[in-house]
Amino acid sequence: MSKGALALLIHGGTDNWAPERWKTRFKSELSDRAVVSVVEDRFDPRTVQYAAVWKPGAGELAAFPELKVIFNLGAGVDAVLSDPKLPRVPLVRVSDEDLTSRMTEYVVMHTLMHHRQQSYLDACQQRREWAPRMQWPAKAVRVGILGMGVLGQHAAHALRALGFQVAGWSRTAKMVDGIDSYAGPDGLPAFLARTDILICLLPLTPQTRGLLSRGLFAQLARDGVLGGPVVINAGRGGLQVETDILACLNDGTLTAVTLDVFEREPLDADSRLWRHPAVKISPHNAADTDPDAIAAYVASQIRDFEAGRPLRNAVDPDRGY
Amino acid sequence: MSKGALALLIHGGTDNWAPERWKTRFKSELSDRAVVSVVEDRFDPRTVQYAAVWKPGAGELAAFPELKVIFNLGAGVDAVLSDPKLPRVPLVRVSDEDLTSRMTEYVVMHTLMHHRQQSYLDACQQRREWAPRMQWPAKAVRVGILGMGVLGQHAAHALRALGFQVAGWSRTAKMVDGIDSYAGPDGLPAFLARTDILICLLPLTPQTRGLLSRGLFAQLARDGVLGGPVVINAGRGGLQVETDILACLNDGTLTAVTLDVFEREPLDADSRLWRHPAVKISPHNAADTDPDAIAAYVASQIRDFEAGRPLRNAVDPDRGY
Repeated sequence: MSKGALALLIHGGTDNWAPERWKTRFKSELSDRAVVSVVEDRFDPRTVQYAAVWKPGAGELAAFPELKVIFNLGAGVDAVLSDPKLPRVPLVRVSDEDLTSRMTEYVVMHTLMHHRQQSYLDACQQRREWAPRMQWPAKAVRVGILGMGVLGQHAAHALRALGFQVAGWSRTAKMVDGIDSYAGPDGLPAFLARTDILICLLPLTPQTRGLLSRGLFAQLARDGVLGGPVVINAGRGGLQVETDILACLNDGTLTAVTLDVFEREPLDADSRLWRHPAVKISPHNAADTDPDAIAAYVASQIRDFEAGRPLRNAVDPDRGY
Repeated sequence: MSKGALALLIHGGTDNWAPERWKTRFKSELSDRAVVSVVEDRFDPRTVQYAAVWKPGAGELAAFPELKVIFNLGAGVDAVLSDPKLPRVPLVRVSDEDLTSRMTEYVVMHTLMHHRQQSYLDACQQRREWAPRMQWPAKAVRVGILGMGVLGQHAAHALRALGFQVAGWSRTAKMVDGIDSYAGPDGLPAFLARTDILICLLPLTPQTRGLLSRGLFAQLARDGVLGGPVVINAGRGGLQVETDILACLNDGTLTAVTLDVFEREPLDADSRLWRHPAVKISPHNAADTDPDAIAAYVASQIRDFEAGRPLRNAVDPDRGY
């Protein structure tokens, strides 16, 4: 009996998401079976036992009656879980070293850019102005990470190694070496009150939707050396309330923000976020997916699954991540 | 007998260099003796046994006949050594954890900004354009550090922890855990040929003056994922040839540079470096000096010296650092 086929349901993204690159990688990793693309190929849907997906359409996965496992080719599964016709099979998310390292690169860079007054220095350069300002060391700055899963813990250690005072908040209590840990709704106020730069790496769930709003921003520390709180969101756009972000920047509740994600993506060309001087925008590229690394990850999970071993990083649908 | 006075010869800089802040700090660290400022105070120069200096004038130190030790309040001593009337007493430079950490912050941030295409993304934001480009992980990028003293080694470890391939070059061979090491003139070509992002943390000496020139840039790797070589100079302006930098950026020998230091500082308002799109400029603030940390460092050295213990980080005048 031939082995179950893998169907690629890959829609959109950068040139990184070119279907042929993914198909080539998956075929070389899974040479014992068919690898087909819904965009390019015709095939019998009954042969498909695995699906690797990126931004699949609602109902698209229901077309495969023999589906056994869905692999989401990124860390966030909120879009897949929102499909009302999602087949009741295990859903696996990516958690690999490559994605984790990329997210840490992003978080470290943007934390340093706020800490080191990079927007001010860029403006000076534009004005041909040599005007250094007082610069505090990292150890004078308190960073707080919302979401202490694999990504949050990795970023926390990198920031701590650079000298920042780092704390983490998570839904359930976590002990992380050298990191002050806060947990649950009861732990949130104290966590926010000691945080100068807030980094959000939470998953999007019904509980976290809209969390980054005025009520939370107003609880951040106001006595820090940066002159006011900074927020970096590299989680999901649905975590943030963009009208609140703009209003809070304009009334001084926030000093600056970095946003990699938005309520609607791509961000509308007429959003006021684009040109706000205290907003740094990146086009949801904080942690890009590497086809080589991810194809190897999915192939090894399929082999483990067929050998009767448990799937790693399977999503708990009730928890939402 | 009263203890020898400390004279502060502090000229210029940011508000960080306000003389009263330094005098307050030094007085609290050295309450057993006089602390005087050449800018603010009148005093008998024969009482002065120690001088703490930042940008002293040529000949200024020769006014103290009983001088025993000169403390330079930064890492680079090239300006002090160029004083033809420099008294023949030990010259100590700052090497403390605070300064080292700040330099690593700067180096890590600018390396990440080049690696993560931050100038391109800033330009996209200005155009309200959502246009992510392919992004490689840090492990695909080869960073090379020129100068593997305390600063270079610290930066090397931080960059390696973020995933970069890191090598170091130094005048004399150094073994540094996990870092490929190259040494001496013979080791330079191979070091440059494997380097995508070159970070210069060398001291300025007769041997290093003008090293960052076309001849060196042309030897950097051209087969890397960044599309061409990048140079970051946070050492001294005298290490670089600015006409070569501009010419090499314009003919493609270099892709981008970050400069914290310049042949003449402050950088002339009419320098073409300011507005070049591939040049990132900072106003010699990579590793600012913290009066609290440095005053404690100098005071502890004076106490050790008076107790007959050796001075740490004394400069070798022949070597130049």
